[in-house]
Amino acid sequence: RIDADRLWDSIHEMAEIGLGVAGGNNRQTLTDDDAKGRALFQRWCKDAGLTIGVDQMGTMFAMRAGTDPDALPVYVGSHLDTQPTGGRYDGVLGVLGALEVVRTLNDLNIQTRHPIVVTNWTNEEGTRFAPAMMASGVFAGVLDMEDVYQHTDAQGKTFGEELERIGWKGDEEVGARKMHAFFELHIEQGPILEAEGKDIGVVTHGQGLRWIQCTVTGKESHTGSTPMPMRKNAGRGLARITELVHEIAMKHQPNAVGAIGHVDVYPNSRNIIPGKVVFTVDFRSHLMEIIEAMLGEFYEKAPKLCEEIGVQFESEVVGQFDPPAFDEDCVAAIRNAAETLGYSHRDIVSGAGHDACWVNKLYPTAMVMCPCVDGLSHNEAEEISKEWAQAGADVLLHAVVETAEV
Amino acid sequence: RIDADRLWDSIHEMAEIGLGVAGGNNRQTLTDDDAKGRALFQRWCKDAGLTIGVDQMGTMFAMRAGTDPDALPVYVGSHLDTQPTGGRYDGVLGVLGALEVVRTLNDLNIQTRHPIVVTNWTNEEGTRFAPAMMASGVFAGVLDMEDVYQHTDAQGKTFGEELERIGWKGDEEVGARKMHAFFELHIEQGPILEAEGKDIGVVTHGQGLRWIQCTVTGKESHTGSTPMPMRKNAGRGLARITELVHEIAMKHQPNAVGAIGHVDVYPNSRNIIPGKVVFTVDFRSHLMEIIEAMLGEFYEKAPKLCEEIGVQFESEVVGQFDPPAFDEDCVAAIRNAAETLGYSHRDIVSGAGHDACWVNKLYPTAMVMCPCVDGLSHNEAEEISKEWAQAGADVLLHAVVETAEV
Ligand SMILES: NC(=O)NCCC(=O)O
Ligand SMILES: NC(=O)NCCC(=O)O
Repeated sequence: RIDADRLWDSIHEMAEIGLGVAGGNNRQTLTDDDAKGRALFQRWCKDAGLTIGVDQMGTMFAMRAGTDPDALPVYVGSHLDTQPTGGRYDGVLGVLGALEVVRTLNDLNIQTRHPIVVTNWTNEEGTRFAPAMMASGVFAGVLDMEDVYQHTDAQGKTFGEELERIGWKGDEEVGARKMHAFFELHIEQGPILEAEGKDIGVVTHGQGLRWIQCTVTGKESHTGSTPMPMRKNAGRGLARITELVHEIAMKHQPNAVGAIGHVDVYPNSRNIIPGKVVFTVDFRSHLMEIIEAMLGEFYEKAPKLCEEIGVQFESEVVGQFDPPAFDEDCVAAIRNAAETLGYSHRDIVSGAGHDACWVNKLYPTAMVMCPCVDGLSHNEAEEISKEWAQAGADVLLHAVVETAEV
Repeated sequence: RIDADRLWDSIHEMAEIGLGVAGGNNRQTLTDDDAKGRALFQRWCKDAGLTIGVDQMGTMFAMRAGTDPDALPVYVGSHLDTQPTGGRYDGVLGVLGALEVVRTLNDLNIQTRHPIVVTNWTNEEGTRFAPAMMASGVFAGVLDMEDVYQHTDAQGKTFGEELERIGWKGDEEVGARKMHAFFELHIEQGPILEAEGKDIGVVTHGQGLRWIQCTVTGKESHTGSTPMPMRKNAGRGLARITELVHEIAMKHQPNAVGAIGHVDVYPNSRNIIPGKVVFTVDFRSHLMEIIEAMLGEFYEKAPKLCEEIGVQFESEVVGQFDPPAFDEDCVAAIRNAAETLGYSHRDIVSGAGHDACWVNKLYPTAMVMCPCVDGLSHNEAEEISKEWAQAGADVLLHAVVETAEV
């Protein structure tokens, strides 16, 4: 069993760096606080006797040697960067949980055949520099490094410049490392485990995603003096598509979700009928056929709903990935660990995207989830209990040890 | 008859200040461009021999003396501020049309018994600082000056600070001036006159208005990992109320209108379910019983539509006026002028609110309207012909002269 107090203390020591305004964290990627967090993590890794490598995307790999020089390492980790108004656990639990695994193995003097590499992926959140899961995406070959180096934040600074500025651009070629397996512990970011009183989520699948950015064009005109039958109100296009997205997702739930989170109304004046509304639909499912069914229905109905009220519909896909199915053996290792340790558990689909989803494209991968209070995440009020963190890290320990072979 | 070329040139010289991106104007109230527009107008007024006073709301009064020292002035004007994506004529035609009236009287050496005061009301549009028709509302005693000084724009700057900053806070007590009558020339901002081929709208009534600012509160959470049945999606509250507002207004059309023009979604991120949406409903009718019927249905149904989907509805009235009926003698002066000059005309209801609606609470008031292309206004593409401007200003001249007595 891991040392829950040590894990908990490390999480909250890390949270002192980039404190938010409401008890959470603002430690966005490639900021000075990200550099401070990385330095603290590096110190802890050195104290644990690990050998540190950094790749050209800034991802940190801290290795505990194995007994077999020919055995590929088992990688374990997540991310230390946060949302601008993020919590203390999203990502951090997975990195420091992995560190706690090797600290525990050190304490118990347990050697594994395969090396174990504690990993901190750069820019999982994607808020400062889009897209999310950037370094793992480059690692998996789905994103191009030279391209993402040019991505800019709201101040116009590029990812490449900022990575150099904070001093964490490493030498290693991205993707050069080969993995025996990859494990990621993460908070659920949803309400299922807490609601069902389960300690552990055994993540069998992730959801695939489509982000469809839509533009509805009507005619900007005076709300008071334009007769009702002469209006082309783009806001009604948004209204109808908001309900359409909900209806489509409801047809497929619990195997799908969908909503519109981003909306810009033009010109956004109290007495002007909206002439244009730009918004992004987020559709997800862990079943590819459901994603296709949802897209089919959406592309059939959305333009019609707009046409009926005299406004125009256009759309463009601005984010996408297909549903990952995690490796059966890795998933079984997690389920067995929960079972052996006596933790209540259920299979679960990850609603959010994670670095594990990209790594899974190349190597056997799986994820452990622990509950979070009210399912709340991407919010400074994000909270978990020490017991939940302990259960998650215990299961991670056992799954990793089983896979890395004693 | 007025000098149409001079009027047209002045309008387009004013439009050079705060040019928009598509041929219209962005000369919002209390911006640097508003100050520049005021300075140009002041110079023209001085050139015409007028005496300028400014009140504590920044409203500008430029007086041409009358022959009778005891006769109250006839006020004539509108506003020089524009929407963020506004046209060249909305408001401007009424101020520069009034200036053209006194320029013409100067040319013809005509003296009137009553003084004539060309007026530029501050913040008619109400987009930067709500509500619309702010300075005339304070003048009429329906808004409180100390209160509106505290109203803030989207950057948190107050009306009072910005009025001082641009240097147009005058000394005169607001409302101290007494009026013999008030006339306002304005573009229709709707399609009726053009469609019927009429030169002149004789405005007998205005629409009353209610601006209801609504806040729908749900729960901010991760779009990917929150199951459909557990969502509290504030965006759906907006969607349902958008359609409700449309349905209610459609029931009463052509005697009512309604729409939502202003929408702010929080936190407005692609993968976060909206936790809060703030938006403003605009309902109007020239019949008080229809306004009451619309409000009754809205307040009955909007909270229920939100309750059904687990989100919370709150609302607050942020702008309101009851339907004005203009002064019979002033209206007759306008109708007679159109008749005498041989312009085709019809009685019309003003769809938009105007400073004249507030002044009408205290003094005999009426409005002249001229057509605009496609009824388009609050849009940079707003357009009128020189002939329409000429007809409007000619009618204004004759109605003002009849009322100010030669
Ligand atoms: N874990 C997480 O919130 N990732 C961001 C990408 C997404 O799922 O929207
Ligand atoms: N004329 C005009 O657009 N006034 C603004 C107030 C309103 O919305 O009617």
